[in-house]
Amino acid sequence: MDGLRGQLEVTGVKLATLRRGGRDGRLAVVSRDLTRCLLVPGIAPTLQAALDDWDAISPRLAERAAALEMSASNADLLPFDASQCAAPLPRAFHWVDGSAYVNHVELVRKARGAEMPASFWTDPLVYQGGSDDLLGARDDVPFADEAWGIDLEAEVAVITDDVPMGTRVETAGSHIKLIALVNDWSLRALIPGELAKGFGFYQSKPATSFSPVVVTPDELGGAWRDSRIHLPLLSRINGHEFGRPEAGADMTFNFAQLIAHVTKTRRLGAGAIVGSGTVSNYDRSRGSSCLAEKRTLEQLESGSPRTPFLKFGDRVSIEMRDEHGRNIFGTLDNQVTRAIS
Amino acid sequence: MDGLRGQLEVTGVKLATLRRGGRDGRLAVVSRDLTRCLLVPGIAPTLQAALDDWDAISPRLAERAAALEMSASNADLLPFDASQCAAPLPRAFHWVDGSAYVNHVELVRKARGAEMPASFWTDPLVYQGGSDDLLGARDDVPFADEAWGIDLEAEVAVITDDVPMGTRVETAGSHIKLIALVNDWSLRALIPGELAKGFGFYQSKPATSFSPVVVTPDELGGAWRDSRIHLPLLSRINGHEFGRPEAGADMTFNFAQLIAHVTKTRRLGAGAIVGSGTVSNYDRSRGSSCLAEKRTLEQLESGSPRTPFLKFGDRVSIEMRDEHGRNIFGTLDNQVTRAIS
Repeated sequence: MDGLRGQLEVTGVKLATLRRGGRDGRLAVVSRDLTRCLLVPGIAPTLQAALDDWDAISPRLAERAAALEMSASNADLLPFDASQCAAPLPRAFHWVDGSAYVNHVELVRKARGAEMPASFWTDPLVYQGGSDDLLGARDDVPFADEAWGIDLEAEVAVITDDVPMGTRVETAGSHIKLIALVNDWSLRALIPGELAKGFGFYQSKPATSFSPVVVTPDELGGAWRDSRIHLPLLSRINGHEFGRPEAGADMTFNFAQLIAHVTKTRRLGAGAIVGSGTVSNYDRSRGSSCLAEKRTLEQLESGSPRTPFLKFGDRVSIEMRDEHGRNIFGTLDNQVTRAIS
Repeated sequence: MDGLRGQLEVTGVKLATLRRGGRDGRLAVVSRDLTRCLLVPGIAPTLQAALDDWDAISPRLAERAAALEMSASNADLLPFDASQCAAPLPRAFHWVDGSAYVNHVELVRKARGAEMPASFWTDPLVYQGGSDDLLGARDDVPFADEAWGIDLEAEVAVITDDVPMGTRVETAGSHIKLIALVNDWSLRALIPGELAKGFGFYQSKPATSFSPVVVTPDELGGAWRDSRIHLPLLSRINGHEFGRPEAGADMTFNFAQLIAHVTKTRRLGAGAIVGSGTVSNYDRSRGSSCLAEKRTLEQLESGSPRTPFLKFGDRVSIEMRDEHGRNIFGTLDNQVTRAIS
């Protein structure tokens, strides 16, 4: 393989974690068209192992990815099947989610008659999420009670290498190694009581779902600039389009700013996941990325929300397509189910 | 070794992670008197690996621990040195910290004239912490600014195996596999602004320090009952005793209750760490486990706090001794330092 690097155009990489070989799964390089993949045990057994030594390992993954595009290693190819994918990191060491689309925060506050502090435009809002149980793109999402107000939150997330404490915005972007899509499930009926206690979300932010595939930033070409993705994020509920806001347009804080914010008092370890928060546009014709926003708009328009939260059996799908209509990350397609107790 | 199990009294186990062999260190069994240890690569390379398969692995660790007490495996013995220890889990997948000593919460609220909701006595308060960077018992603890209000929080924590969603209090205790001491460093001056934003702690709760050794509950004998440790937790600042509250006396929610609370809407993966929050007693003669509580008492007594927060160069040590005065977990002894930027 060593000679291939010179012969092939080495660009971006798509990676997935296949559900085999233990709790952390097995790392695979995925073809750009999401039809084929290749396990890479000789390079890194798991995505976490790759991230732990990214500078050394990523060129070797890029070489395999380029070879895969040439079909230069047919013997080991597997058909790619998103239903066989765990979350890219089935368990991660850090998951922090921003709320970077401040127009969304402003809107939700307005609906409940609460003033939004001006500092929200300059000081990012983030919460620490649980990361020991990240869900795959086709996993069922069980809850005990529909009355918890089950909601999607369609988001973009980045995965970093080691980021030192005190990293500045100017250098933070260089720590972004991979990009994913996320459904940050939220339990709206549990949020007010939990936030009133003052310590933030816990029960109201259950396990999060991830796209089958993560990609390196260069895989996005010109759509990745200024530490934002400039493409629409498409979500559907039970097959009906729910929203397609443009993820770059109204992102008040880009990922470099979010990373600088979260490293003010701590470093991040390799494999830390940083989320954007619910993608939202001022242009309301583009729809929403969560039911809470849609319900807020309905309330402002007609005095009360009409759209219900999710029920057992509902399916939420999320994907992003490039300017040629090609699916970049594969599709999240999770069904909400009744937890068996 | 297989025959030893029958010959030796197999009781509890003490474990540590030595700072070698990569990011997750190397698992060692530690002698009860904390003088000797033994790497166990043939059983589990890391503590996370042991927890991933605890039912199968823990009996083998117990056997080695029993043999170690007999000095039955002299050849591989190493002197135990807490300064060589990383955190038992140098990076973990889940760290959730309770605030289980409600008398402490009530006191702090009283000082700032805020009513505490009655539900705080029945509904546990927890926050999700960052777990990708857990500090060893002798690691320096760097911060950029003394003005952040650097404080200790001396706590007890437990480490679980896999805990299903919806676990009830009655069975939650059986998931507690290991116990540790924790210093949950807090940046008091950053807390009000951060909590006012509504999403809980992030910058104000930096990396947490752990005791050099974790122990199985049976290692505590009768001091572990009702999912609480009934022993004093001793903290010192620059060698002067700061507090020795009894960790079982006023713990409103025991660890089984905390685990049931955190699994209401999610499962926990093996190796999840659940903290008690700042240990505190109604008996104020026992001192405190954080400066914020001491300052609150001073304020209530004389109108203003006298004791300053920590300065660069200050050392905080935390330990717990059994009824015979023997150090159970080893001693945390961390120095606060100025971060190099």
